[in-house]
Amino acid sequence: MAAFHPLAASRVRISPLLPAAAMGAGAAAASASYAHHRRRFCAIVATAAASPAVATEFDFRAYMGEQAAAVNRALDASIPADEPPAALHEAMRYALLAGGKRVRPALCLAACAVVGGREAWAMPAAAAVEMVHTMSLVHDDLPCMDDDDLRRGKPTCHVVYGEPIAVLTGDALLSLSFHHMAKVDSYPPDIDADKHPARVVRAIGELARCIGSEGLVAGQVVDLEMTGSTETVPLDRLEYIHLHKTAALLEASVVIGAILGGGSDEQIERLRKYARSIGLLFQVVDDILDVTKSSEELGKTAGKDLASDKTTYPKLLGLEKSREFAEKLLSDAREQLSGFDQEKAAPLLHLANYIAYRQN
Amino acid sequence: MAAFHPLAASRVRISPLLPAAAMGAGAAAASASYAHHRRRFCAIVATAAASPAVATEFDFRAYMGEQAAAVNRALDASIPADEPPAALHEAMRYALLAGGKRVRPALCLAACAVVGGREAWAMPAAAAVEMVHTMSLVHDDLPCMDDDDLRRGKPTCHVVYGEPIAVLTGDALLSLSFHHMAKVDSYPPDIDADKHPARVVRAIGELARCIGSEGLVAGQVVDLEMTGSTETVPLDRLEYIHLHKTAALLEASVVIGAILGGGSDEQIERLRKYARSIGLLFQVVDDILDVTKSSEELGKTAGKDLASDKTTYPKLLGLEKSREFAEKLLSDAREQLSGFDQEKAAPLLHLANYIAYRQN
Repeated sequence: MAAFHPLAASRVRISPLLPAAAMGAGAAAASASYAHHRRRFCAIVATAAASPAVATEFDFRAYMGEQAAAVNRALDASIPADEPPAALHEAMRYALLAGGKRVRPALCLAACAVVGGREAWAMPAAAAVEMVHTMSLVHDDLPCMDDDDLRRGKPTCHVVYGEPIAVLTGDALLSLSFHHMAKVDSYPPDIDADKHPARVVRAIGELARCIGSEGLVAGQVVDLEMTGSTETVPLDRLEYIHLHKTAALLEASVVIGAILGGGSDEQIERLRKYARSIGLLFQVVDDILDVTKSSEELGKTAGKDLASDKTTYPKLLGLEKSREFAEKLLSDAREQLSGFDQEKAAPLLHLANYIAYRQN
Repeated sequence: MAAFHPLAASRVRISPLLPAAAMGAGAAAASASYAHHRRRFCAIVATAAASPAVATEFDFRAYMGEQAAAVNRALDASIPADEPPAALHEAMRYALLAGGKRVRPALCLAACAVVGGREAWAMPAAAAVEMVHTMSLVHDDLPCMDDDDLRRGKPTCHVVYGEPIAVLTGDALLSLSFHHMAKVDSYPPDIDADKHPARVVRAIGELARCIGSEGLVAGQVVDLEMTGSTETVPLDRLEYIHLHKTAALLEASVVIGAILGGGSDEQIERLRKYARSIGLLFQVVDDILDVTKSSEELGKTAGKDLASDKTTYPKLLGLEKSREFAEKLLSDAREQLSGFDQEKAAPLLHLANYIAYRQN
């Protein structure tokens, strides 16, 4: 069976959302490469190839496998299996080690590397962003919130451990993320001892900001408000939700990696723009997948947005225009990477493609 | 009506929990001062006078009023009233500005001062510990947890704003606490720019550690497990709950203040011991108040522990022995302060007395 992917049915053209005059050479080149992508989109899903020149030298599947394994080791080591309180540690480990794709940690590590840092310098942050992501899933899935029973193909935390433990598991994961980033022994000995504390403080500030009333939580609050409403959500409100609920943590993941890698302010801001584009892209693709894929393929309840009459990009713009919007966001993201060493930027380039072309 | 206080009916004697040989001169002096306290315990509640020599020079009521006002200003400024998402900010402000006693911030500021720091250096942390405390109250009050309708004399957050917003308010306050501590512009310009980042990282690590599976959350998990059980909780388990649920954050408040004030490791560890004693003291007194005061006096549901057959110190030890235990803890706490400049230590000394002799 040929896999369907969100951008597969789009025509090759400049998105109407992006004025032609604003398109630089990099974006135009990126746009041309879509034809290549579409011709082989089944393969893309597996390897998420970027432009052909880089694609031949970079095995994205192997890269992601290695990164996920390293992150999983860090996550596994961060929560003791046998120490009390056993119920809490078990629930934390259940939620955290449920086998997510580790996209956020991968972004964090790749951003550290693209500015010239060693990936190990960002590993505590990579683990931290996954802890924050998992916390938001555990709390959003609660009966009083989105009331979801299935997550990553498994029963949700409150289904297995009960509601009180699920609330507390989220709280514990959130605080653990900061503890993990602040602990000196989370970091390898070759960090720059003079500059490191200031970088960690700045990185913790970025992480904290993306969670609360400027990030994840704000997005969830507005999302809940909209879900209860009978009105169609206007596009700017939908974008607010996604920029906060999804893009903010992806942005923080990239920016924190760049900070800990010792990136310059200019590099950090370029990577921030890259991250904002892929953040919104992530959600547009999520919306498209929800209407086009089965629960089994997604590992979570499919068609839920439609069933709950939730406003999504496909509902507001139609499927075709949603795909065009996704293309434009991918193009924007790639443009921000053009100033970096292309070999070092390959993981971020492939991650953008992966987010655009993923199947779940 | 003469107010009752937890230590009022205790006889003056060395607690059986503390071997006489272990009592230093400082502790003996502290013990002698109890007689003074008991003679005027109504006044103590208002002014929480310490040893007579210091008491005459230190107006504890005025001190606490000033500290609370300064902390409330910092908390008020930390959450915008008019910016979206309005529902979230309103709920955060409702929970945070409900007029608590601000004991934890006061401890944080006093610990900063006792090691020679300016209180302003610790103000972001003082605000942060109150945010964390409020978060734990909001989540612990949830219907799926302790199901409390009344807190600080007002309807709890979920009663006013609903359960989903209450969960998210807690999450937002938790992340805000770290954001507030990490933001450079939280701090006054006279901080030591070279040493400050390392101090902030260390302080954030202390704060994060006291929340999750080594602190507040662990205490709440074991507390919930015990509440469901028909067995009487053994003393060591009760102490585990209180050391985690109550003492951990009080300890962090003190330690963080000392770190940001530039305290030496030796000073920090002495203050940590002081904080552990008053942390447990705080809970022992809380248990005593629950069985001896009305809901109106407490500003929260009284007799709840008894009604729910919850294990408390009075239940395990009896009221008299609970008071003796409280005396011993107070004495231990005062002993740790003996090495500091006594004028600078006056607030911490009075705070310990206040925790022992408070009425709600």
